Amino acid sequence: MSLQSFRKIGFIKGGQLARMMIQELISLDMGFRVSVLDDDANCPCVNLCENFVIGDSRNFDDVLDFGKNLDLVILEFEDVNLEALQELENQGVKVACSAQQLALIQDKGVQKQFMLEHEIATAEFVLVENEADFLKKSWCFPFVQKLRRSGYDGSGVQVINSMEEMGGFFDQASLIEKKVDFAKEFSVIVCRDVFGKTDFYPIVEQEFHTEKALVQLMIAPSGLNESVKNQALEIADKLSKSFDQAGMWALEMFLTRDGQVLLNEISPRVHNSGHFSMDACFTGQFAQFLRIALGLPLGSMAMRESFAATYNLLGDPHYKGEVLVEGLDEILKIEGVFPHLYGKKETRPYRKIGHVNLLANSRAELEEKIQFVKSKLRVVAR
Amino acid sequence: MSLQSFRKIGFIKGGQLARMMIQELISLDMGFRVSVLDDDANCPCVNLCENFVIGDSRNFDDVLDFGKNLDLVILEFEDVNLEALQELENQGVKVACSAQQLALIQDKGVQKQFMLEHEIATAEFVLVENEADFLKKSWCFPFVQKLRRSGYDGSGVQVINSMEEMGGFFDQASLIEKKVDFAKEFSVIVCRDVFGKTDFYPIVEQEFHTEKALVQLMIAPSGLNESVKNQALEIADKLSKSFDQAGMWALEMFLTRDGQVLLNEISPRVHNSGHFSMDACFTGQFAQFLRIALGLPLGSMAMRESFAATYNLLGDPHYKGEVLVEGLDEILKIEGVFPHLYGKKETRPYRKIGHVNLLANSRAELEEKIQFVKSKLRVVAR
Repeated sequence: MSLQSFRKIGFIKGGQLARMMIQELISLDMGFRVSVLDDDANCPCVNLCENFVIGDSRNFDDVLDFGKNLDLVILEFEDVNLEALQELENQGVKVACSAQQLALIQDKGVQKQFMLEHEIATAEFVLVENEADFLKKSWCFPFVQKLRRSGYDGSGVQVINSMEEMGGFFDQASLIEKKVDFAKEFSVIVCRDVFGKTDFYPIVEQEFHTEKALVQLMIAPSGLNESVKNQALEIADKLSKSFDQAGMWALEMFLTRDGQVLLNEISPRVHNSGHFSMDACFTGQFAQFLRIALGLPLGSMAMRESFAATYNLLGDPHYKGEVLVEGLDEILKIEGVFPHLYGKKETRPYRKIGHVNLLANSRAELEEKIQFVKSKLRVVAR
Repeated sequence: MSLQSFRKIGFIKGGQLARMMIQELISLDMGFRVSVLDDDANCPCVNLCENFVIGDSRNFDDVLDFGKNLDLVILEFEDVNLEALQELENQGVKVACSAQQLALIQDKGVQKQFMLEHEIATAEFVLVENEADFLKKSWCFPFVQKLRRSGYDGSGVQVINSMEEMGGFFDQASLIEKKVDFAKEFSVIVCRDVFGKTDFYPIVEQEFHTEKALVQLMIAPSGLNESVKNQALEIADKLSKSFDQAGMWALEMFLTRDGQVLLNEISPRVHNSGHFSMDACFTGQFAQFLRIALGLPLGSMAMRESFAATYNLLGDPHYKGEVLVEGLDEILKIEGVFPHLYGKKETRPYRKIGHVNLLANSRAELEEKIQFVKSKLRVVAR
């Protein structure tokens, strides 16, 4: 297969990740025909494709009908009907990530077992069928309950701190995980092209919103020490080899207070933590994912500036309505500041409306730019 | 006016320049609604907009109907009905470039007189109504005849070397220009934002295709000496001030064999010679043009790498048919190589299918990359 084999490309779904891939696809286009499947007729890609299809990514027929006349289907998230993707692959449609990878990752229980099998360090866990099943197990508080087939964006995930909170337990098949008292959270994105070459983006450290458990700031390269970095890259290397297939895997990791690196979750695709690469690296993650899916060689993942940050632009908690980003004119005056808005029409408290990438030659300069952007930008309603 | 005032944006027309602006528009989007007017239903933007309108940019009604409900109309070329644009401005629609600028630039005779009035050095010229009028003038061979309202892409321009070639003289209102025996051709892009700030991109030197008079390679920064650069930037500065309006002006200049800088032509927009900036500068020309049109401040025009080139990808002279670019997989392995294909479906001899931007830390490394890309890439038909 070569680039020329892929004429008709479809995205499931049409959110900001697909949108930023279309932004990159514009540069590689020898006459692609782009389709998008989404259940929301106002999704960010609706006007950036030749063929927009309303449908449910979890529905077998919707996915099969959407994909069957395409050459390549790209998933921007994991909540997609697996059987339909397998059937598409049987019919000769390329799917990225592959159905095999999705099968391992979509079910959080299977994903954890996969880590165990490959001797990749991860938080202790147990799989339970339902609440009754859980009550028979020995387990200690606090813990994290994650639905094995949870949705998107943190839904179906909760921390249960004590017996008192057991009333809220989800009575469904779940992954029960020891709550890790981590010192740091970071991520590694590892890529492998169809020629078998693998490479990593610089490790990204995440900082959370003080009130909400939302990632608000990410910094690359991380300030982790060599030992921690080596542990992380070893995991990434092992992971990329365990698939024996081309792909991109974003690996969320914890650094525990006693210096151990644990793999938390795998996303088989572009990831929020890789947004810095759009402006900071020779080949950004969106261009890279396309290269991998289209059978092209990996591009350089090196940084072009010494330091980079991604600041997530969240809806102000006091506003709901049509998006208005205040302060853009202020931040655009600064060199190395790249806003990326997602074309969303509505803001809600803490809704992610876009992100801003920041580049700098020193960590101090980066901090200064971060503070400036934080102080100027606000997502309100018109 | 602020960014928030521009909700409905229209492009005239939907070629590669508009396409690359849409690529950048994706990053600034708070809910823009994009329309495109073109007479070609296969134009590169047809599937990247909410509303595609078939129409003739030279037709008053087509342009007025297209623009009257928009907030901002962006011209990607100059052959647009001026009266319709003036009427749109009267109705409160912003036009970029403005009708005032277009009026000065669209007619090559008026453009030359404008240069004279502002004491900007340019090749000697005379304006003639038709062939009979020309025959009354004292003029010497060789000269360049340019239709005052010529079309696009070099049509309506010819060199007449001797009496023998007078049979081909266009019998229309023309600009007759002394043929400049230039040592070098280069361009400067100067920008001015709505706040009155002006800035330049690094000067770009052009190299021509050996057989056809087509630009094949552009290099930034130019190797021009300080005196020449100063002359060029002085012209650019004078020009940007002469408009007293926001805008972007690409200035094509000649360096004569005796060291004089002459202004050849002005384009009031993004330009082929500015493509390097997409990957080489903090703010590329497409993002910059949008900022200017949307009333945002200019971004940094500094280069992020020391040297850059743009290599134009022209259709192989022996092929006609559906575009196939050979060698992409080879060139993508090299760091700092950025292909930009325009999504054109058909190749023809010498048709411009895309360009490749190249970045390097030294001029020698840049030359090496240029030779590599030249040797690998070929635009053929499937």
